Amino acid sequence: MKKRQIFLNQDEMPRQWYNILSDIKMNPPLGPNGNPVTPEQLAPVFPMNLIEQEVSTERWIDIPEEVLDVYSIWRPAPMVRAYNLEKALGTPARIYFKNESISPPGSHKPNTAVPQAYYNKVFGIEKMTTETGAGQWGSALSFACSHFGVECKVFMVRISFDQKPYRKTMMAAWGGNCVPSPSMDTRAGREALEKDPNTPGTLGIAISEAIEAAVGDESGKTRYSLGSVLNHVMLHQTVIGLEARKQMEKVGEYPDIIIGCAGGGSNFAGLAFPFVLDKINGKDIAIYPVEPAGCPTLTRAPFVYDHGDTARYTPLLPMHSLGHAFVPPPIHSGGLRYHGMAPTVSQLVNEGICEPRSVTQGKAYAAGVLLARTEGIIPAPETNHALAAVVEEAVRAREEGKEKVILFNWSGHGLLDLGAYEAYLSGNLKEDIDLPDTLLTEAGEVYAGNPKPGKLSSRR
Amino acid sequence: MKKRQIFLNQDEMPRQWYNILSDIKMNPPLGPNGNPVTPEQLAPVFPMNLIEQEVSTERWIDIPEEVLDVYSIWRPAPMVRAYNLEKALGTPARIYFKNESISPPGSHKPNTAVPQAYYNKVFGIEKMTTETGAGQWGSALSFACSHFGVECKVFMVRISFDQKPYRKTMMAAWGGNCVPSPSMDTRAGREALEKDPNTPGTLGIAISEAIEAAVGDESGKTRYSLGSVLNHVMLHQTVIGLEARKQMEKVGEYPDIIIGCAGGGSNFAGLAFPFVLDKINGKDIAIYPVEPAGCPTLTRAPFVYDHGDTARYTPLLPMHSLGHAFVPPPIHSGGLRYHGMAPTVSQLVNEGICEPRSVTQGKAYAAGVLLARTEGIIPAPETNHALAAVVEEAVRAREEGKEKVILFNWSGHGLLDLGAYEAYLSGNLKEDIDLPDTLLTEAGEVYAGNPKPGKLSSRR
Repeated sequence: MKKRQIFLNQDEMPRQWYNILSDIKMNPPLGPNGNPVTPEQLAPVFPMNLIEQEVSTERWIDIPEEVLDVYSIWRPAPMVRAYNLEKALGTPARIYFKNESISPPGSHKPNTAVPQAYYNKVFGIEKMTTETGAGQWGSALSFACSHFGVECKVFMVRISFDQKPYRKTMMAAWGGNCVPSPSMDTRAGREALEKDPNTPGTLGIAISEAIEAAVGDESGKTRYSLGSVLNHVMLHQTVIGLEARKQMEKVGEYPDIIIGCAGGGSNFAGLAFPFVLDKINGKDIAIYPVEPAGCPTLTRAPFVYDHGDTARYTPLLPMHSLGHAFVPPPIHSGGLRYHGMAPTVSQLVNEGICEPRSVTQGKAYAAGVLLARTEGIIPAPETNHALAAVVEEAVRAREEGKEKVILFNWSGHGLLDLGAYEAYLSGNLKEDIDLPDTLLTEAGEVYAGNPKPGKLSSRR
Repeated sequence: MKKRQIFLNQDEMPRQWYNILSDIKMNPPLGPNGNPVTPEQLAPVFPMNLIEQEVSTERWIDIPEEVLDVYSIWRPAPMVRAYNLEKALGTPARIYFKNESISPPGSHKPNTAVPQAYYNKVFGIEKMTTETGAGQWGSALSFACSHFGVECKVFMVRISFDQKPYRKTMMAAWGGNCVPSPSMDTRAGREALEKDPNTPGTLGIAISEAIEAAVGDESGKTRYSLGSVLNHVMLHQTVIGLEARKQMEKVGEYPDIIIGCAGGGSNFAGLAFPFVLDKINGKDIAIYPVEPAGCPTLTRAPFVYDHGDTARYTPLLPMHSLGHAFVPPPIHSGGLRYHGMAPTVSQLVNEGICEPRSVTQGKAYAAGVLLARTEGIIPAPETNHALAAVVEEAVRAREEGKEKVILFNWSGHGLLDLGAYEAYLSGNLKEDIDLPDTLLTEAGEVYAGNPKPGKLSSRR
């Protein structure tokens, strides 16, 4: 029998997260006055212990015992050798993936939801608000809050809310309360509905609603939580890559290529960042964030200062952005329909350390079905984008006759996204949606007057 | 950090299944002429290699390398200590479960789907037909067939097909073809629709359709597959209990109580049978199959000879049966809506080795939500029945102040059954459906004239 799953025992679980801010230079987020944001300015939005993590430049940050205890419900996650895919493609590449689909919410998202709920609880917070695109993040935060007795309210992008009614129930099973966004509960929501009562919603609007609902609670016991983009989110996700490094060691391998899909950047960063450190230190390794051609943040949008949300409640973040008012086309991959990108991931792309790719949703679903029929797990639509790039690289290795080692992140399963598979399998999924350059230029007008982030280099 | 998940490495996976026919006495299945069925009579329905397994009395049967290879996609399954549930209930009991929800189809079902697809392939079969209730089995067989290049057709009980449209898509993602039953594709289906065009369908009717579709294929290259009830199915599932015994040893424990939900009997048997052997050999251990009060096969129906399907295509099986024409009420637990019970499980109940319990669906869902909020995984509706019994036993241990060790089977997750949770969480799930004795007596008329199975005893 082949050694397909590479397990770690629970006593081999990483006890610290890796903080990439110790190893790269970053432009600071800017407040309304154009100066770098202070922790105090963020205090109404996030608890101070998480703000401290957000700005920390310590390389290693301890994972609290209480977080490890909840992680241990599904972690360490197996690393899997994709023998069947290799065989199906006839490739000499050795392909591995981290299986993050086995968490109870079905994705990598609880890796940060759990510590966020924990730090909020410790800080005395009683209620957390957030937004969710595909529903993975809202499910994860509801799951996490159930473990620490924190109330959870989720604003879910309406197109996903309607496409996936069971997501709401899933959150409710863990005690979470999910409403479609834009909602009438916030000023940002009401304004969006006034502008277009039939809007499919965007992550940008939903973020505005969730921030407003947190900051507006006069008891001071509510805070906002973001499932991607921010530094502390990337930090928490590095448990994926840190486990993967140990697992690679166990089988005597080291990856030539790292691949993860990228919407806000967190599952990509979680796998990639520990290997980015090796690359900065001289390792020869290709690192590919993969995004949908229908929402091409890294591959077609410029590096600018822009807001993370539509109502401009967030600071200006240095990132690749399609513009905070951009409404992504209704591609079947809610988790990747975001106008911006994590500043850390954006910075690594600027420096050429990570090389972004994009794939059409037709190619993504074709790869997803191939993987379902070889490796068994039905992938999340987001994961499918990574898979399409994996297939491309494996085929290239075959053509070049090279024994490359490919490692990718199976970020989630698609069991609550089967509507999109139904469309694909019945031939009703568009290969992709065309985004002319003019559209992107127009969308970019919202950040045209902002300060420009500096060009920095972190290579040693 | 607590040691919550107890892993086995892949080289510790059991290499043989345990066959309980070596250790208990059984009444034989009877053919149309009233005599024991011969292997030849079954040959149009099943491939001969599986028929040989069905009647084998060897205690240990080797798991083929090709089957181990597919098992290794998700096995060995973790055994988990349910610390959070223990704490929530304040019980001195130590509670463990096998987590069978992590298989790609989401349940224990692929444990037998994979070997069945393998043995059919080896025998030269090109297409398999089957029925499915909740959809777990049809998904599992579609998954399994995708690994061996065998075509798969699934007749899905109509009420479940309508309640869970994504099950069909899930099967399609693996290449399976799922139709609602009763269908117009078979005589059995057409007759059922003629009698009641609005019938919700039953597993009994769907079995008849699948058998007819297999036997009626004149090429001789199609066979039928059953996901529960039969001896070879129970055999394959013992991989669960065999792993659990090793995992229990690793933590220096041995269970006082074994619990599994029981519809046809396979997830219960899979966990319990290796421990039944210990009990027959003198161990003091309580073993509880748990069924829904709305379909009380073991707790209220007699032990008789009856058919496994509505159209009476199957041999007469010695089992607890509500009558092959019984239409179970539309409880939200499709996998437990079956009129019969595995002959092996029935026999063990007759002998007092296993003691059946029943729970209402209201109690089952209450336990399911408690477990989702403590142990994280949203359980399948079927699993909820086991959970209700676990909670009862844990509370009893608290009241008696006893440190019992409870082991149960988390047979699957409920991510494709969230409609039922929606009904429960919004207060629209009936506590249960009343089944008066007179209804059961009437339903029993269909087997009243059959031969009576003998009373046998296997205790040593």
